[in-house]
Amino acid sequence: MSAALVTDLYELNMAASYLRRGMVGPATFSLFVRQLPTSRGFLVAGGLESCLSCLEAFGFADDELEWLAGQGFDHDTIERFRRLRFTGEVWAVPEGRIVGANEPLLEVSAPIAEAQLMETILLNQVTFQTALATKAARCRIAAADRFELVDFSLRRTHGVDAGMAAARLSAMVGFSATSNVEAARRYGLRPAGTMAHSYVEAFPTEGEAFRAFAEDFPGRTTFLVDTYDTLDGVRTAIDVIGDLDLRDNVGIRLDSGDLAGLARAARAMLDDAGLHRVRIFASGGLDELDLQRFAVSRAPIDAVGVGTQMGVSADAPSLDSAYKLVAYDGRPVLKLSAEKMTMPGAKQVHRSSPPTPDLLALRDEPAPPASEPLLVPVMRHGRRLAPDTLDQAQTRFERDLAALPASALDLGTPQAPSTRVSEQLTALAADLAARIHQRTRRTAATS
Amino acid sequence: MSAALVTDLYELNMAASYLRRGMVGPATFSLFVRQLPTSRGFLVAGGLESCLSCLEAFGFADDELEWLAGQGFDHDTIERFRRLRFTGEVWAVPEGRIVGANEPLLEVSAPIAEAQLMETILLNQVTFQTALATKAARCRIAAADRFELVDFSLRRTHGVDAGMAAARLSAMVGFSATSNVEAARRYGLRPAGTMAHSYVEAFPTEGEAFRAFAEDFPGRTTFLVDTYDTLDGVRTAIDVIGDLDLRDNVGIRLDSGDLAGLARAARAMLDDAGLHRVRIFASGGLDELDLQRFAVSRAPIDAVGVGTQMGVSADAPSLDSAYKLVAYDGRPVLKLSAEKMTMPGAKQVHRSSPPTPDLLALRDEPAPPASEPLLVPVMRHGRRLAPDTLDQAQTRFERDLAALPASALDLGTPQAPSTRVSEQLTALAADLAARIHQRTRRTAATS
Repeated sequence: MSAALVTDLYELNMAASYLRRGMVGPATFSLFVRQLPTSRGFLVAGGLESCLSCLEAFGFADDELEWLAGQGFDHDTIERFRRLRFTGEVWAVPEGRIVGANEPLLEVSAPIAEAQLMETILLNQVTFQTALATKAARCRIAAADRFELVDFSLRRTHGVDAGMAAARLSAMVGFSATSNVEAARRYGLRPAGTMAHSYVEAFPTEGEAFRAFAEDFPGRTTFLVDTYDTLDGVRTAIDVIGDLDLRDNVGIRLDSGDLAGLARAARAMLDDAGLHRVRIFASGGLDELDLQRFAVSRAPIDAVGVGTQMGVSADAPSLDSAYKLVAYDGRPVLKLSAEKMTMPGAKQVHRSSPPTPDLLALRDEPAPPASEPLLVPVMRHGRRLAPDTLDQAQTRFERDLAALPASALDLGTPQAPSTRVSEQLTALAADLAARIHQRTRRTAATS
Repeated sequence: MSAALVTDLYELNMAASYLRRGMVGPATFSLFVRQLPTSRGFLVAGGLESCLSCLEAFGFADDELEWLAGQGFDHDTIERFRRLRFTGEVWAVPEGRIVGANEPLLEVSAPIAEAQLMETILLNQVTFQTALATKAARCRIAAADRFELVDFSLRRTHGVDAGMAAARLSAMVGFSATSNVEAARRYGLRPAGTMAHSYVEAFPTEGEAFRAFAEDFPGRTTFLVDTYDTLDGVRTAIDVIGDLDLRDNVGIRLDSGDLAGLARAARAMLDDAGLHRVRIFASGGLDELDLQRFAVSRAPIDAVGVGTQMGVSADAPSLDSAYKLVAYDGRPVLKLSAEKMTMPGAKQVHRSSPPTPDLLALRDEPAPPASEPLLVPVMRHGRRLAPDTLDQAQTRFERDLAALPASALDLGTPQAPSTRVSEQLTALAADLAARIHQRTRRTAATS
């Protein structure tokens, strides 16, 4: 995807103006989340891979330029746009890492027109993917490793791209499989699936449906038991398992009603029939609080399909993300708007062992001893520096998750870990704000 | 997009089983929303165009089939998949129409494997697009035609596809422009845009930034005035408008703080300067309740940019949609699962003049006098019947909106119009349920 027009019109207007005026000085933009949703104690970085792909592919196609000419962009601007590629540098928090509010997820340094033009697509990808990764991580925390998690979200994500991202990001935070076939193919995930109610209904009886499915998929049979009456369905499954002598990878799926209670009843029935290895799978509009109840009550559930609630991050479907100019042509800049003041300059976040809070500092400040930088260079001269893999992202997530304090892990009223701001950054912000206020007062006095 | 693998694994499993068993009888699946979110009094149908494109393009590519073979699908199944196209019939509620819970949005009739395989993509597109169209319609209702609405959502939608859908669907329900350039190009919408804070910051002073922008875009200048201090910014804009003698298409944009209050102050300042035609544009995390406050308090705002809240349908980011088998091989079917019972048979919804409630009936029942059918045939033998345009969808929306009762339009605690179920459909559902209960009891007795 070149996506040069997948942007807000004002980015094109500003870029046209910068280019026309020969404003080609280097700019740094910082992408961060201003404030966490109240139900979030952390964020899981997501979306960087998509961002880097978009940056590498950036460029206007001929038909796009023609269309822009018809919209009033003049000939010289069109020719300047034609030559544009993304030639800049990107520092970013790698995917899977856990971050907090105001910690930059990504910083872009490039000639200002190039960096400006990337705003919309970078915000789009980082915002929704970080929101989805964070929601999936909450499911992972809730499950407490008591049962497997399977991504079932594709049918209700906001489009196909979002479905692919949900599958990939949920795998990143510990889901073990996905129902999404294309995502399984694309990202090397384990595809998983059972049967729908329609399959059961397409046969004269539930028993005939179960028998047919077991014959057709002998090595991977899960019976959906709630089409008519759940415990009747369990009985039918037990009969078919016995009749066909099914042994490996056999399960039943509960998709409605009191799932924990039905799981207990079904487990007892299966155990009474000697079917201790038949697994119980649960699904049906579940969120992380449902998962937590299953885990806490030790419901005999072996795997859970999590769909819509995770795939749209239902309780917090967006984040208060921003992409702000922090330096231009060698000088740090900031914005003072009510409640939305930004911090100037290219930055770094230094992480030390807990409980030491993260330190938000200017990028060129020396690192504190025994700390690790969260932002690393990922692109130079418009080219990716090193490939990143989903395995690496999973490892980063597991490590950061293990280090999170319990107060941040709380699903109900979490407390995000605090972040310190370096003295140098604090002083620079105060100094710049004072200078702007002074200038504003002067302007007001002379007008 | 062929999208044959953009599906849940279980669809492929079931289709393989049907095909292997020669189960090629016609099936009808019905796509509907079981229950409205509590904050919704209606739904605006969206997503049909995308669905029809997916159905027409359906087919497995060679590399997709190869991958499936590696996943354990046998040779015969792969060859059956290779030949599959969508050859069926679709009835649907055209986009832009207003519907309620349990009213089918779409019904697919085709050989069962084909119809089953479409479940995931159809649910995906209809669910999120209907959610977004409905949220945008609430913004339209809130604005009460007191100001223009502009789609600003692309930066925070769940991916690019969702951003395109948000632009198109918001235009369908009365938004007058979009910031999304590609959507403007693709759907013939009016692109709109101003400047970002970064533009102001890239110049030594706000005044220099405003002057530069006005010079570069003389016919379409909107000054973003809140980078440092909003009312100072308004003063600067007034100076620049005077100095450059700007006359047409000039505006200021407020993006933070008490927007209604600042709009009043800015309007007074502009009017004092004789600039009555300079428009005031507001933006910044606004939802329909904010818009309603602006409208009710008659804030002097001429246009509002609506972004994230609309683009992710923040308070109801998904719908409780279902795609259920309602007939197979000449017999109606249903599902009895707890709280999720479905209604059998292909259906029609008949709408009469308000306050007569919609009538949900079997498709082949005679229509009540002076009623209009909501579902119309849109595809036969896998081909679209007639092109639909965004203009037509807009017209349908305006007509249905005008007929909605005030109780459904309420944004806080709306009351959805009721729907009646025909006697014939009620009797069929009861009869089928009784027969299933009887069969279940018999099975239980003999086991």
